[in-house]
Amino acid sequence: MNLSIKGLVYEDRGKKAWKSVPMPTIQSSTDAIVKLTSTSICGTDLHILKGDVPTVTPGRILGHEGVGLVQSVGDAVSNFRPGDRVLISCITSCGKCLYCSRNLQAHCLNGGWRLGNEIDGTQAEYVRIPYADTSLYAAPKALKDDELLLLSDDFPTGFEIGVRSAKIAPGETVAVVGAGPVGLAVLITAQFYSPANIIMIDRDDSRLAIAEELGATMTINPTKLTTNSVLDEIMKAMNADMKASDPVSTYQTPSPGVDVAIECVGVPQTFDTCQKIIAPGGRIANIGVHGKSVDLQLQDLWTKNISITTGLVSANTTSMLLKLLQRGKMKPDRLNHSSP
Amino acid sequence: MNLSIKGLVYEDRGKKAWKSVPMPTIQSSTDAIVKLTSTSICGTDLHILKGDVPTVTPGRILGHEGVGLVQSVGDAVSNFRPGDRVLISCITSCGKCLYCSRNLQAHCLNGGWRLGNEIDGTQAEYVRIPYADTSLYAAPKALKDDELLLLSDDFPTGFEIGVRSAKIAPGETVAVVGAGPVGLAVLITAQFYSPANIIMIDRDDSRLAIAEELGATMTINPTKLTTNSVLDEIMKAMNADMKASDPVSTYQTPSPGVDVAIECVGVPQTFDTCQKIIAPGGRIANIGVHGKSVDLQLQDLWTKNISITTGLVSANTTSMLLKLLQRGKMKPDRLNHSSP
Amino acid sequence: MNLSIKGLVYEDRGKKAWKSVPMPTIQSSTDAIVKLTSTSICGTDLHILKGDVPTVTPGRILGHEGVGLVQSVGDAVSNFRPGDRVLISCITSCGKCLYCSRNLQAHCLNGGWRLGNEIDGTQAEYVRIPYADTSLYAAPKALKDDELLLLSDDFPTGFEIGVRSAKIAPGETVAVVGAGPVGLAVLITAQFYSPANIIMIDRDDSRLAIAEELGATMTINPTKLTTNSVLDEIMKAMNADMKASDPVSTYQTPSPGVDVAIECVGVPQTFDTCQKIIAPGGRIANIGVHGKSVDLQLQDLWTKNISITTGLVSANTTSMLLKLLQRGKMKPDRLNHSSP
Amino acid sequence: MNLSIKGLVYEDRGKKAWKSVPMPTIQSSTDAIVKLTSTSICGTDLHILKGDVPTVTPGRILGHEGVGLVQSVGDAVSNFRPGDRVLISCITSCGKCLYCSRNLQAHCLNGGWRLGNEIDGTQAEYVRIPYADTSLYAAPKALKDDELLLLSDDFPTGFEIGVRSAKIAPGETVAVVGAGPVGLAVLITAQFYSPANIIMIDRDDSRLAIAEELGATMTINPTKLTTNSVLDEIMKAMNADMKASDPVSTYQTPSPGVDVAIECVGVPQTFDTCQKIIAPGGRIANIGVHGKSVDLQLQDLWTKNISITTGLVSANTTSMLLKLLQRGKMKPDRLNHSSP
Repeated sequence: MNLSIKGLVYEDRGKKAWKSVPMPTIQSSTDAIVKLTSTSICGTDLHILKGDVPTVTPGRILGHEGVGLVQSVGDAVSNFRPGDRVLISCITSCGKCLYCSRNLQAHCLNGGWRLGNEIDGTQAEYVRIPYADTSLYAAPKALKDDELLLLSDDFPTGFEIGVRSAKIAPGETVAVVGAGPVGLAVLITAQFYSPANIIMIDRDDSRLAIAEELGATMTINPTKLTTNSVLDEIMKAMNADMKASDPVSTYQTPSPGVDVAIECVGVPQTFDTCQKIIAPGGRIANIGVHGKSVDLQLQDLWTKNISITTGLVSANTTSMLLKLLQRGKMKPDRLNHSSP
Repeated sequence: MNLSIKGLVYEDRGKKAWKSVPMPTIQSSTDAIVKLTSTSICGTDLHILKGDVPTVTPGRILGHEGVGLVQSVGDAVSNFRPGDRVLISCITSCGKCLYCSRNLQAHCLNGGWRLGNEIDGTQAEYVRIPYADTSLYAAPKALKDDELLLLSDDFPTGFEIGVRSAKIAPGETVAVVGAGPVGLAVLITAQFYSPANIIMIDRDDSRLAIAEELGATMTINPTKLTTNSVLDEIMKAMNADMKASDPVSTYQTPSPGVDVAIECVGVPQTFDTCQKIIAPGGRIANIGVHGKSVDLQLQDLWTKNISITTGLVSANTTSMLLKLLQRGKMKPDRLNHSSP
Repeated sequence: MNLSIKGLVYEDRGKKAWKSVPMPTIQSSTDAIVKLTSTSICGTDLHILKGDVPTVTPGRILGHEGVGLVQSVGDAVSNFRPGDRVLISCITSCGKCLYCSRNLQAHCLNGGWRLGNEIDGTQAEYVRIPYADTSLYAAPKALKDDELLLLSDDFPTGFEIGVRSAKIAPGETVAVVGAGPVGLAVLITAQFYSPANIIMIDRDDSRLAIAEELGATMTINPTKLTTNSVLDEIMKAMNADMKASDPVSTYQTPSPGVDVAIECVGVPQTFDTCQKIIAPGGRIANIGVHGKSVDLQLQDLWTKNISITTGLVSANTTSMLLKLLQRGKMKPDRLNHSSP
Repeated sequence: MNLSIKGLVYEDRGKKAWKSVPMPTIQSSTDAIVKLTSTSICGTDLHILKGDVPTVTPGRILGHEGVGLVQSVGDAVSNFRPGDRVLISCITSCGKCLYCSRNLQAHCLNGGWRLGNEIDGTQAEYVRIPYADTSLYAAPKALKDDELLLLSDDFPTGFEIGVRSAKIAPGETVAVVGAGPVGLAVLITAQFYSPANIIMIDRDDSRLAIAEELGATMTINPTKLTTNSVLDEIMKAMNADMKASDPVSTYQTPSPGVDVAIECVGVPQTFDTCQKIIAPGGRIANIGVHGKSVDLQLQDLWTKNISITTGLVSANTTSMLLKLLQRGKMKPDRLNHSSP
């Protein structure tokens, strides 16, 4: 007898269906079957539905975020047993390939982003999780499903590919371009390292209002600027701040730009903002999903001693983020309501 | 005519005098003369008065902390001019020797701890500051003398030799042994990196009460423990915390000890506490001024993959600390009243 | 039918026997059985035979170094198949516990040093390897068993706990105390980072002669020193070197001591040599297996901005070492003949 | 009386003259006057002569590389005295501005690249060196002028902006695009960190022949490739190498590309080669002087967890390079004859 469950199935460009699909089963001794209690829809799922992601073929159950209860485990699974409440990571990692050994699970030769992409995902009643020991996390009792879901993808992405790649340090000035869910995750987790200033840049004033509640020290809506560039605006504020507090001293000359710029949108224009506002010695971290190339102003940047980083999340900071979420150092509630 | 000023002079073991001394003058083109507006007494000054510091000879004006106004500068000084309000660093750095080039100003071949030690110090109306460009800091208008004074020595010491040497990272568990001024500076600046737990250990309950106000998540008074060791006490709390929030899972097995232990006292017993509570992979940072050797339990520690660091402050984080002090990320008021 | 094989069995303090033991079998889906083609005896095995290692109980097959051919694998093993020639690591790592996820496989909650200690080892015809995917390494064809054996334990230990912990950098001066197999592995792998000077210190002139062949730039036999201390001897050489080549310049003042000191013996006296010769800003890495505590001269060291590190090997650099061994960047032949 | 000396003066686009100019004099207490014994012509000088560098105005004495004898020093200079033989760095650093304190002397607010650009340079009998204490280096007696000259600019540039920015580690595969003087300096200094493979890519076979002598493990002339891309060629070699030595094992799957790619030319095509051959987790270091923007393939790179770095040399590794040059770890002779 083949039990059947319900799941959200991608059928074709623009077509999806909530329908009966077979109950997933243990296929390898390192698998677990998880009964979902909560799942969520990521911006990437919307791209898939538009037909933009060629690795997703018709018949695929969508979803790479989820919280649930372990239903059954294969023989080789030792970190979890049936009944355990778990957070599902968007990244499957085997824990034993070349890339996992280098802590670059995003490129796991047996995993990476597979759920709701190359294999059936979390928008269903049950899901099969390969390499369960290294792809699931024990869910602390104190945390609700809603809070946990943000750690499937958004927070690890913002923290690892934004904050950590950019090596944000105490006292620095950080600009975040884009105040959507990932931009706000950057805003929140950047504060783990106590920058002096966090400037949020977005075209939507309501997102900027949320950013201010979550700790932004300055916000800029570029569509509201008349003559000034974003860089002018930042430098004006930094100079005003300095005049108010410092003596006139060459020693205190501000860096012409920001120490860190984090791109959270994925279009050439927002990348361009980052390369225009970065100070000598600064770091640009790209998180945005880009569909085309960008024009890198290397004729200006070659002398500036900057770095530009890119990347998919590896989710290897999930345990740490769970601890800080428990300690109240993140405010996921506000973030849950930030996307339309 | 040799003008005279008043200063606190070390005369002999246990003997000091507030008396007339010559007005200091520019001796080298890199000097500045600073008129003190505030100074303070460090624990080290008390050691000097007891006669414990052989480099301090009779006739020396004491003091290595201070805030003041630049009175005059030598020809080669370019960062400051007369009238500038400045913070005086406890460390003199020439900016051009082997050690300064390695960012280890504590061991500057022409500087290091000289004020109130090898040359006249800040407990006077005026002081001569060698290598003024690299040994003074422009004082932000918004900060009062009282706040600034903590950045002459205590905060850079706690941050550089404690927090930074121990590489405190988000989500970690940190123990600070000793809740005097430097221990509290560690407590405050450790929070720049968002550890999950900060455990303060001291024999004085009133200091521990201050520590709780300043962000300690747990306090231990070892004199109040009856049967448990400090390590038992820490593990009991960590286990209780885990039981309250986590499922039973081997994955979540706590490290047997703390990730970071910071010694802020300087006696064998407190160092011993650190080596007893450190987890595998952990880091012990010693700040305490030790008068004798300690018994290092290498027969236990050789397998534990730990590090032990020592050091004098280099004060090369002073500019950064000034920024975060202005941003309200430190609470120096409470610290000012913490020492008897 | 229970097949039997031959193995070297620890029977009691001072008693061992080469005798028939049962053929090992797959006990868990992550196991592999390896037919040994070569094995070796480590200094630790001699300690075990003396009865110094309480975790080794009578009946245990000894040995944690080996090269062989995979005989069979459990269902969950995917990196290896029967017939593969493999290097056996002295460290068993599960790839999925808290410590493995932190790249600290030495403290793996399911592994660590188990072979020839808590479970049967490699001094037999066959051995069972738990967590084979993360505890075995594919053996390059070009390398002979003799060469490979050095990568089971000695080279990863010297490199990880010595060279890497001490963060040896180009141009530095390194002292290695002890020129046994691990000390020589440090000497060879230290050269990956191009230090300017490597000083080998040992009581045995024949070992020092080998060290010179392997790249030591200076050797010291402390038993041959009459009036000078080891530090005097080092400084004399460094000063002579400087006078021969440099102009008189304060800028070039040598550091009073070495940048890095690596302890490869495990007794208080050799640790003491390290703490006496270390320069400000230097790093002491302890590899030696210590049986008792040492007297740490914290009254001198507290001001010196040094670090002291300890540790068991995690063997997570084995793949990298295999590559450099293939490239001829290590000279294992000489090392094979270095121990008596 | 105003003494006059001879110098090479830029007069206008395409026009230079070797003519009489005034003897330079101490203008600030931190200056030194150096009598040149050797100087050299850098590729940048050729750009200046073409009129491509707007900061160079008519009347400027050219040159930013040199070796000489200190003639006189200002009052505040303490590291050097008249008669000292010195290496002149291409970078002037004040040692006391915001950027110098961050070890980013390239952007020194009072220095940076000034010699032969904003102030008179080294292609003259005498030159004034501002901030002499932090812009000159004592020349070891054992090194000849010819050898030293390479440390004025080429070697620090190749090492700092190429090797160090790209964080080359033992065992890695490095590609260097461009085998001119700076590319060869990268090739030589990359070997300080023992990569397994160094692939030199250039259109000139005679340069590639020199590269092989200097340690390249593979060379590619892209103009000689018929059907294969540079990446194909690299992967073919890496796969052949692997087949010859490794067993068939998924564990040993090569990274699809190189760990490090260093751009040493400065045109869009060579930058493009770098972005095409970089493996996941890899690092691209740009040294080339670019005159226009490049097309960054962010639609491919956003998922690859790479970094791209840029920069001007800070020359803060000059002392270290001097030590390794003395130790024979660099072979500057071959490099001297490498440029046409």
